[in-house]
Parts: sequence; C-alpha cells; structure tokens
Amino acid sequence: MPYEFKTTRRVEFAETDMAGIVHFANFFRYMEEAEHAFYRSLGFSVHRRTADGFVGWPRVAATCDFLRSLRFEDEVEVHLLVRQRQPKSIEYQFVFRTRRDDGDLEVARGTMKVVCASRSNDQSQLQAVTIPPQIAEKIEEAPRELLEV
Amino acid sequence: MPYEFKTTRRVEFAETDMAGIVHFANFFRYMEEAEHAFYRSLGFSVHRRTADGFVGWPRVAATCDFLRSLRFEDEVEVHLLVRQRQPKSIEYQFVFRTRRDDGDLEVARGTMKVVCASRSNDQSQLQAVTIPPQIAEKIEEAPRELLEV
Amino acid sequence: MPYEFKTTRRVEFAETDMAGIVHFANFFRYMEEAEHAFYRSLGFSVHRRTADGFVGWPRVAATCDFLRSLRFEDEVEVHLLVRQRQPKSIEYQFVFRTRRDDGDLEVARGTMKVVCASRSNDQSQLQAVTIPPQIAEKIEEAPRELLEV
Amino acid sequence: MPYEFKTTRRVEFAETDMAGIVHFANFFRYMEEAEHAFYRSLGFSVHRRTADGFVGWPRVAATCDFLRSLRFEDEVEVHLLVRQRQPKSIEYQFVFRTRRDDGDLEVARGTMKVVCASRSNDQSQLQAVTIPPQIAEKIEEAPRELLEV
Repeated sequence: MPYEFKTTRRVEFAETDMAGIVHFANFFRYMEEAEHAFYRSLGFSVHRRTADGFVGWPRVAATCDFLRSLRFEDEVEVHLLVRQRQPKSIEYQFVFRTRRDDGDLEVARGTMKVVCASRSNDQSQLQAVTIPPQIAEKIEEAPRELLEV
Repeated sequence: MPYEFKTTRRVEFAETDMAGIVHFANFFRYMEEAEHAFYRSLGFSVHRRTADGFVGWPRVAATCDFLRSLRFEDEVEVHLLVRQRQPKSIEYQFVFRTRRDDGDLEVARGTMKVVCASRSNDQSQLQAVTIPPQIAEKIEEAPRELLEV
Repeated sequence: MPYEFKTTRRVEFAETDMAGIVHFANFFRYMEEAEHAFYRSLGFSVHRRTADGFVGWPRVAATCDFLRSLRFEDEVEVHLLVRQRQPKSIEYQFVFRTRRDDGDLEVARGTMKVVCASRSNDQSQLQAVTIPPQIAEKIEEAPRELLEV
Repeated sequence: MPYEFKTTRRVEFAETDMAGIVHFANFFRYMEEAEHAFYRSLGFSVHRRTADGFVGWPRVAATCDFLRSLRFEDEVEVHLLVRQRQPKSIEYQFVFRTRRDDGDLEVARGTMKVVCASRSNDQSQLQAVTIPPQIAEKIEEAPRELLEV
C-alpha cells in the first residue's frame, strides 16, 4: 500500500535531555527518518545528486503534538500516512506509539509537508518542481478514514 | 516588555545538512533557545531542580512554516511573542528573520506551547502544575496586533 | 563472546552536513549507540535510576580517526571491542566499516573510555564507583591480536 | 595573535542528556564552532563554494578528555590554540573552562586535526590540497609553552 509505512526505532541516549525524556526536536527527525525509509521502500532516495545539481524535498511545514514522553531505550513505532499529494508537494501525517505496561500508547502525532525541488550548481535557491511521474505514480493518498479527523 | 524577546544567533556548520541549508529540526531548537533566553532575561531558569525533584516546561505542541532556507553563517534573529498565557501553560509565537542583499527577510514562523510541570524523584510521570505566581506575573500576552493573523 | 559486539545502522539525512557527508561529531554518537546496544545484549541498561539517584557511565575520553567519509544512506557497521577493563572503568575500541563498490572499507576508528559512576539525588557531582560484579563478570578484554596495534 | 582564539557560549537545554549534563559528543561541536569563529576572525569562511565545487576542511582526527561535567546554562569558554600547521593540514588544541563557586575550572581538553580539501561538482571524493597562501600566512603555530605538555 503506497499510502502508508511503519518503522520502529529505539530511543538513543543522546536523544534524551536533562528532563530524562526525548528532546522534542527529535520527533521531527524521527518523522523525517520514517519518510526517508518510506522512500527507500518505494525504490527511491529522497536526495538525488544529478550532473548539474540535485533534486530534493525541502520541508515547508511541520507540526507535532506531544501527548506523552518517550524515554531512553523505549521502542517507538512511527506510522506514516500520506494525507495529501499535490503536483509539487506531499503532506504526511505521523503517529508515534510505544509500549507501556498498560498497552500500546500514542505518544505524539505530527504532520510534515514537503515540496519537490531542484537546484543547479550555479544557483543558490531551490526551485519547486513537479514531482517526477515515476515517483508520483507510486504514492497515493490514504483513505480519509485512516487520517486524523 | 514582558511579552516579547529578541535574540540573534549565527548558523553553525553542524546545523546544516547535505542540501546545504539548516536542517529543519534545528528551527525547533532555535525556538527553545530563544524561550530559555527570554526566561533568563526575566531572572528565571526554565528547569529548576528542587529538593525532591524538578520543575520544568515540557512542550505539548510545536509548529513551524518554512519560507526560505537558512545557510551556514547566516545571522538569524528569533523574535518571540507571548500569544497566550493560561494558568498552567504558555503559547509562544516565533518569527525568524535574516539579512539578505535585498533586506531583512522572514525565513520561518512557528509556535510552541509549553506546560508548567513538576516531577518528584519517586515519580516517573510529569504532572502539570499552576505556573508559580512570581513567574506568571512577569509574563503577559502580546497585544493582538503584534501577533500573526 | 563478551568482549566484542557488532551493530549496523544507516546514515540518516539529519546526520549529514553541507559538505555532503556525515558530520564528524556523529561518529561519537555512533560509538555510544554501539556501546549501549552491547550493554543491552548483556542484559543491562547503561543508565539505571535507583531509589535515591542513578548509576551511569560518564565518558572520560574519546578519540576518532577519520579515514573516509560516510554519506547519506550508507550502511555503517560499528565493531566494538573491549580494550581494557579496570575496576571502575572500561575502554572500548570502535572500527567503522561501510560497503563500497570495491569492497568493505574502514571509514573510521575510535576509542572511548567510560567510568562507572553514581549520583544520589541530593548530590550535584558524579562519583566513580566500582563496576558492580554482575556487570564486571560479563565483560572481558579482547585478545590482544584483535586490537589495533 | 593568529595562533589562538577564545570564544564563550552558553550550554543549551537540547545539549544536555538524561544524566543532566552536556552530552559528550557536543564538545566536538563546540570545538568546531570555535574553529569556525577563529576563521571568521581572520576574514575567512571555513566552507567556500566555488564555481565548480567547494573548498572545505574535513576533520581527520579528534580527541577529547572530559574532566568535569558541564550543565545547562553554564557559560563555557573555549580556548583554541594552533598546535601545528603543515602544508595541507592544521592541528588545533582546545581547552574548555567554566566558572564554578571555587573559580574557573578546566572541564575538558581536546584536539582536532583538519585537512584543506576541495571537491569539484563531478567528483564524489574530497582531495587534500595545499592551504591557500592567503590563509596559511595568517595562521601560525602557538609558542610551545602555551601548549599542553
């Protein structure tokens, strides 16, 4: 199903802060790691160097709601869903879950909107471009009932 | 004026990624650094160890819209405004600006909602608590016309 | 064999810098991640909260020689070897390898020395302590011929 | 004096870990930040994009000894000294100090060796190159008596 992807990773020590929990900025790295693993699962890399520059996916927006804290060595499941696919951009939803004594709990929920963009070596600015068809045709929007209401 | 704060910092090399720009997760660290500097400017620290635990400000939500990219050695101004102050929580707005050849440009805009919370040494969970009066009375909401509409 | 451990992980986008390679400080995080996975493989956690404080393993020294660069999505094998086990400290050696068209190549090589230490909640300083016997007896020094000469 | 440089920065919350102290990998970022500020003080940037690639300073070795821990909001002075300048490389020494109730204390001490290197856009590997004369002539080795014995 090319509209969702799940990956699990363990919380590393360096990702915690002095409050004893995962520093919140790392949730955005977790989202991106899941997105990139989703890409690899489709046979693509998120950042391709070309003869005269590169094609990548800069982020244009990101949000996260933090419901519970994650701790060192927790295993966290990141569930990616494609919320919206437009000609030049994709918006993802992410749900983070971890196991506690009382079952699987949602710890956070976020979104990330990315734009397909290219830059030639003699440019300093990225340009939004249409998502290449071989990528676009592999990614579809998740059924509405799976997305956050 | 206890409803806003400005700080400037330079983009460090380790904050860039292979796309040659600041990795987006770092904007959330910049927000938090500005928040903590705001706290220090009021005479407080954001994380206080007490005899039997600590009082801190876990994040419950964060958002950021990315309009332009920041590069290595750019100086970025982070402008914090207090959007809302409730009994146990504060919501901030952040505007990031940097200087380009054609003037000061807004590069990103975000929000962060934090909750005052404490934890005693024998607890594993943080508990939301009322913001101590000596802090609450120093922080006020920004006039509506300064906030994003 | 309780004197070595191997783990493999993929280079994440956020770990690269504008030179297009893994930022060097991340190699030290990779070392630590391998050390902690080694611990888990022995049935321990590297950081244990106790009733009145915690026992952990602060680092007292770390070194790394960088031979080649690692890139986004490279798979890197981290090979940990116990160089020396003393009553209160352990010194590890790490060798990083990745696959290239011309075979498995060493990309970096490092060391890390850690000390067993505890801190009670009313102290601000960590105290070096003897490694608990149930841990010490599970960790032995690697044969000399496996270590860097 | 082009053989030394001092800079001060405050420990940020995101740089701490669950042990309540600065995560050790950040000391290497602090070294690099001091090196880059040293460069700027000489009128250079450490990473220059050219028409057909870039010139940078990849690290070939780094070491650090950790004597004391740094905590959130500590002000840390990073003192850079040029240990050795060779045709294609420079080795730096760094001493970290912070203020405690009983005076200025050394918290850590490290070294970093960097190589001048370039890469054209059509290459994947960095090539070591001779340090450009306008840079080399501005950087000299520190007197032996200032360096660690």
